[in-house]
Amino acid sequence: MVGGGQGAFIGGVHRIAALMDGELDLVGGAFSSTPEKSKASGQDLMLDPARCYGDFKEMIQTEKRRADRMDAISIVTPNNMHFAPAKMALENGFHVICDKPVCFSLSEAKRLKDVVDKTGLTFALTHNYTGYPMIKEARALIKNGVLGQIRKVIVEYPQGWLSFPIEKEGAKQAEWRTDPKRSGIAGAVGDIGTHAENLAEYVTGLKITELCADVNRVVAGRVLDDDANVLLHFDNGANGILHCSQICNGDLNGLNIRVYGELGTLQWHQEKPMYLQHKTTEGHQIYQPSVGKLSDFTNANTRIPFGHPEGYLEAFANIYRNFARTVRKRMNGETPNEFDLDFPGIEDGIRGLKFVETVIASGKSNSKWLKMR
Amino acid sequence: MVGGGQGAFIGGVHRIAALMDGELDLVGGAFSSTPEKSKASGQDLMLDPARCYGDFKEMIQTEKRRADRMDAISIVTPNNMHFAPAKMALENGFHVICDKPVCFSLSEAKRLKDVVDKTGLTFALTHNYTGYPMIKEARALIKNGVLGQIRKVIVEYPQGWLSFPIEKEGAKQAEWRTDPKRSGIAGAVGDIGTHAENLAEYVTGLKITELCADVNRVVAGRVLDDDANVLLHFDNGANGILHCSQICNGDLNGLNIRVYGELGTLQWHQEKPMYLQHKTTEGHQIYQPSVGKLSDFTNANTRIPFGHPEGYLEAFANIYRNFARTVRKRMNGETPNEFDLDFPGIEDGIRGLKFVETVIASGKSNSKWLKMR
Amino acid sequence: MVGGGQGAFIGGVHRIAALMDGELDLVGGAFSSTPEKSKASGQDLMLDPARCYGDFKEMIQTEKRRADRMDAISIVTPNNMHFAPAKMALENGFHVICDKPVCFSLSEAKRLKDVVDKTGLTFALTHNYTGYPMIKEARALIKNGVLGQIRKVIVEYPQGWLSFPIEKEGAKQAEWRTDPKRSGIAGAVGDIGTHAENLAEYVTGLKITELCADVNRVVAGRVLDDDANVLLHFDNGANGILHCSQICNGDLNGLNIRVYGELGTLQWHQEKPMYLQHKTTEGHQIYQPSVGKLSDFTNANTRIPFGHPEGYLEAFANIYRNFARTVRKRMNGETPNEFDLDFPGIEDGIRGLKFVETVIASGKSNSKWLKMR
Amino acid sequence: MVGGGQGAFIGGVHRIAALMDGELDLVGGAFSSTPEKSKASGQDLMLDPARCYGDFKEMIQTEKRRADRMDAISIVTPNNMHFAPAKMALENGFHVICDKPVCFSLSEAKRLKDVVDKTGLTFALTHNYTGYPMIKEARALIKNGVLGQIRKVIVEYPQGWLSFPIEKEGAKQAEWRTDPKRSGIAGAVGDIGTHAENLAEYVTGLKITELCADVNRVVAGRVLDDDANVLLHFDNGANGILHCSQICNGDLNGLNIRVYGELGTLQWHQEKPMYLQHKTTEGHQIYQPSVGKLSDFTNANTRIPFGHPEGYLEAFANIYRNFARTVRKRMNGETPNEFDLDFPGIEDGIRGLKFVETVIASGKSNSKWLKMR
Repeated sequence: MVGGGQGAFIGGVHRIAALMDGELDLVGGAFSSTPEKSKASGQDLMLDPARCYGDFKEMIQTEKRRADRMDAISIVTPNNMHFAPAKMALENGFHVICDKPVCFSLSEAKRLKDVVDKTGLTFALTHNYTGYPMIKEARALIKNGVLGQIRKVIVEYPQGWLSFPIEKEGAKQAEWRTDPKRSGIAGAVGDIGTHAENLAEYVTGLKITELCADVNRVVAGRVLDDDANVLLHFDNGANGILHCSQICNGDLNGLNIRVYGELGTLQWHQEKPMYLQHKTTEGHQIYQPSVGKLSDFTNANTRIPFGHPEGYLEAFANIYRNFARTVRKRMNGETPNEFDLDFPGIEDGIRGLKFVETVIASGKSNSKWLKMR
Repeated sequence: MVGGGQGAFIGGVHRIAALMDGELDLVGGAFSSTPEKSKASGQDLMLDPARCYGDFKEMIQTEKRRADRMDAISIVTPNNMHFAPAKMALENGFHVICDKPVCFSLSEAKRLKDVVDKTGLTFALTHNYTGYPMIKEARALIKNGVLGQIRKVIVEYPQGWLSFPIEKEGAKQAEWRTDPKRSGIAGAVGDIGTHAENLAEYVTGLKITELCADVNRVVAGRVLDDDANVLLHFDNGANGILHCSQICNGDLNGLNIRVYGELGTLQWHQEKPMYLQHKTTEGHQIYQPSVGKLSDFTNANTRIPFGHPEGYLEAFANIYRNFARTVRKRMNGETPNEFDLDFPGIEDGIRGLKFVETVIASGKSNSKWLKMR
Repeated sequence: MVGGGQGAFIGGVHRIAALMDGELDLVGGAFSSTPEKSKASGQDLMLDPARCYGDFKEMIQTEKRRADRMDAISIVTPNNMHFAPAKMALENGFHVICDKPVCFSLSEAKRLKDVVDKTGLTFALTHNYTGYPMIKEARALIKNGVLGQIRKVIVEYPQGWLSFPIEKEGAKQAEWRTDPKRSGIAGAVGDIGTHAENLAEYVTGLKITELCADVNRVVAGRVLDDDANVLLHFDNGANGILHCSQICNGDLNGLNIRVYGELGTLQWHQEKPMYLQHKTTEGHQIYQPSVGKLSDFTNANTRIPFGHPEGYLEAFANIYRNFARTVRKRMNGETPNEFDLDFPGIEDGIRGLKFVETVIASGKSNSKWLKMR
Repeated sequence: MVGGGQGAFIGGVHRIAALMDGELDLVGGAFSSTPEKSKASGQDLMLDPARCYGDFKEMIQTEKRRADRMDAISIVTPNNMHFAPAKMALENGFHVICDKPVCFSLSEAKRLKDVVDKTGLTFALTHNYTGYPMIKEARALIKNGVLGQIRKVIVEYPQGWLSFPIEKEGAKQAEWRTDPKRSGIAGAVGDIGTHAENLAEYVTGLKITELCADVNRVVAGRVLDDDANVLLHFDNGANGILHCSQICNGDLNGLNIRVYGELGTLQWHQEKPMYLQHKTTEGHQIYQPSVGKLSDFTNANTRIPFGHPEGYLEAFANIYRNFARTVRKRMNGETPNEFDLDFPGIEDGIRGLKFVETVIASGKSNSKWLKMR
């Protein structure tokens, strides 16, 4: 693991997600930018101190020489520290699972894709919200034509935790996310807008072709956006709305999606992830894991019987588990199946950064529609 | 009453709304464009046949000479038939309550405003959703600063009933709404977008200053829009999103609003109108009529004790009742109070048609922002 | 109308329910036990002072001699004042609609049944919760076998408004309900337990045969029960639970029912009356008025299109409207149809008082099961 | 681990719960009653075959001689196979975490308590529903007097998965639960009724003193109960209702609790575990993990920021983690703190079996109230 030391948020999530299913083990890491903090973090995790490294370079160079070397490396650092460790890990034979957005910029992401392609190793990107079973179900239903032609997609990601300038009050999670040196050209659009974009494209199988954005810096003093409203056009002619915001005071982690087709709508909200609403002119059904006949993808990403709620960590763990199974099979010379391969990868990362760059450009433009390509 | 004969929808709603509180009585009308149908409709309503007129002109001319003449006239015809009866009624001394949008075009609405101003009579516009008690509460809370500075407004009006071209299959309600000769330049934008616009401005006390619209005709063969996504800017600097659609198959009458301020958010959904969500970083409260301390406006628009759900008809009746009290007091030489006067009027009608004309123009424009003025 | 003067609650509800559909008109009443208050109440209602009577006897005697006499009399007084006016009204040729419980005691109720039978007039009892459209739907689905054999019924009526001894602090509604001289032998069990019992029997078509009750006086100083938990056995072998309480602080008017059959369950909550949940091992559907194919009884008790919430007053008005149609047809020599006749009557009243007397007896008994017959 | 081989349900849950937080590792087990199946199950789990034992006796005897011996043993077998392995494990120095109900009978449970007391080792019972953070919050609020005096407790555990006689169709989970040789004297009452009883006593801090039960065998051919309705009295004078059923077709895993006090109510439903409703006459608040000020116990059992739903597995893991921390501290000579010690133990197991025996006896009795002691 690279990053995720004391005081971090997402590192702990990655660790739980990795361990839960007993298919991966955490053996070491470079948890912090300072060697002492990295060691201390490793100690908290009851790891072998010899495998708690001062930085990712030391880790990769040392591990590659061990007989019991790590199989894969998880990268959970801020955006500006994804590319270098990912590239080096891949070039030294480690499979990689990386937090999103995949890189600091679209050009970095394209260069990383070249590395992935060249090494032929497995690369996963933790767009974790696509790991929820009811998202698998929505995708399967749409693919099977249950909604008919898709006409409209509304995807929202309102959060409220940056409603005040807490980055100036010592909130570590807020500091790097509002800092262009670590986050890149976008704030909320990169941090959560990419999740919304990825979810919409994953669920519908459509691609955004052009967009029109109102990009805002609501809290005084911010350099990066903390709020954006975006009109969308998709490649099949559907229209849509995406909004992402971190100043929606009172909303928590409100990612949600509504897909409208000729024949009905599917609606899902991340905070009540066990429920997928299916509504038509004739009725309203609620789908839940393990109730009735669901798609094989849904069942493959469900662990426990109906009525036993699974949550964010299990969805995140689905990405890890599918990645782990793919890696293991490939290492054993086996061919992963479609369930193993069901995790986001470098192409999703490139779409995400194209989205970021187009939204930010549109925010500054007086033209109505900008192509996303 | 003008309009609302056999087979109409909104006429029946207006009648229930008018009668419920025992403050108004229906004594006659011109219910249809054909005299026979008007008579038959009046008979169904157990009215005096002598007061069931062939058209609105006959009605106004006859009624104005009766000792027990109507006090007020309710206009529930399609949009193209609002201006003429409203103008004639006012000019002959009748107060008027009229369905929305107020007129066929902005220019008509402005001319009607002149008539209202000149006659000094009472004119109400049935933007009925502002009659809900919890909308009164939201307005009062925002006015009292509970949310602090307003930053973002999301108002949605998704319906699904025009997902198929039912106007070609004999659906009377669909026919006139999709016909530019009767509806004007807009379909969904005029029919329900104006409700959303009115609700947003009523609740927040803000005015939309500019907008950017993606206006769509989704069902093949439609001349008027059946779907629109609109980015908004408000006069205090807040941003927003409005979307209205009649092709959201599976949604029923899903008007809803979320207002985000510096200090929290208020959220309300028309289909569960008894609940107003108030969420902040510190907590989540649900307000309901008669539970705890609410504004005097909320209480003035609530009829029954807590836990006894009031609905669409009661909200509609609040507009009628407040209008009736205002008319009665004015006829008695009394001064209506602020609760009596709490109903939409000609200014709301003008805002609505400005909104319609700006959205439709924006939909055809390559410029990003159009002023709404 | 008998009762329902200034300061009353249910009288106002009855008036709105009666007027809403334009099928009944309020022409006079004996609104209070003191003639002055009765006159004043009538004045508030803009009634002819000549028809605002000092007491029900004067009203009935005077009205029966008028050419334009009342057709029907509505009784909205406390329980101890139901029998006498109902009997006198019926015996003088007036149809009667009466609040519940039908009488002060079971023996009174049986005597009233004799009067109803003898006069052949129409008698309605406002178990208003059975007027909700989704209750009609539940009843129809069960009758059609959608749940198979009924196995278990849970019906609850928790309220919190008597959590404190407000009857000692001038709360008029609380005073008579906690006073055995006006309410009879039961408090909560009579006031709301009877609604729960009636709803369970109406929806399922089953009859309670025996019960075991824990009857409580929770607030110190109360003479009558304010809380009861009751185990039920039904005539088809199903078991059940009924609880009613007025000390459930925080609950409002939480009547709800869950019926479990071999094949699935139907669940409904009065505070969200537009939704009927239908759940099976295979899925979860939500039924709403006018969405999809519903029973004719449901449609007959629905006024407006889908997504437009109807509430408590409309459900109450359904009882009045069906009663009014039955009365009108009978007065015109026509035969009411099954939709007209769909309102509770004297038999429901007798069941209610049997329930009250059995629950109160069980509460005092050490035997486990008491028959309800 | 004892039990939890191929085809089991709860064994997999225990493993995820144990691994998730990286505080425990699974090193071996006796997973099945047949040695071959035990080995095969261990292989699926990628365990050292040398530590996959033929039965629990072999496991305990072999492990106690290893230098790297197991610290604790998890018992996940049917009820009739809890006592023997638990006793032997404790007597050989292993800490024990055991599924519920703790034993086959009350007398066994009392004997096990003697062993726990004598050995002084740590014993945890997986009444996992008490591991939910919002249950911790409810307990803390009640302890702090937020509800005032508790007046009424309603706890329900409806499931529907045994609505049909699936035990005769090869459903392994159903077979042992409906078999008195493996389950004991109770079916649903032991399997899920004990969870409801434990939750009610844990949340309120009260003890049930007497009860009156209607115990049913609804599906033809069952020897054990599959449904029970129980009236409760608590040691502070509060009354209550408990019902548990496995024939509530359409309900999934619907454990829920409502506690009513003088000052308000707290309400929680297991299928939406992130939400704790707090309602009073003055308002309705929804509490969620990490929103606003919560108790230290709540925070100690929450892993991720607000809006990221945790579920059943995390609640289960809280029991494991607290148990693991207690064991580790005790093994290190440290004193566990109140958060470490917050897990159910042998006393909860004894309460559970007292409840089972009293309910079953009451079901057969004509007396109304039976003491539970």
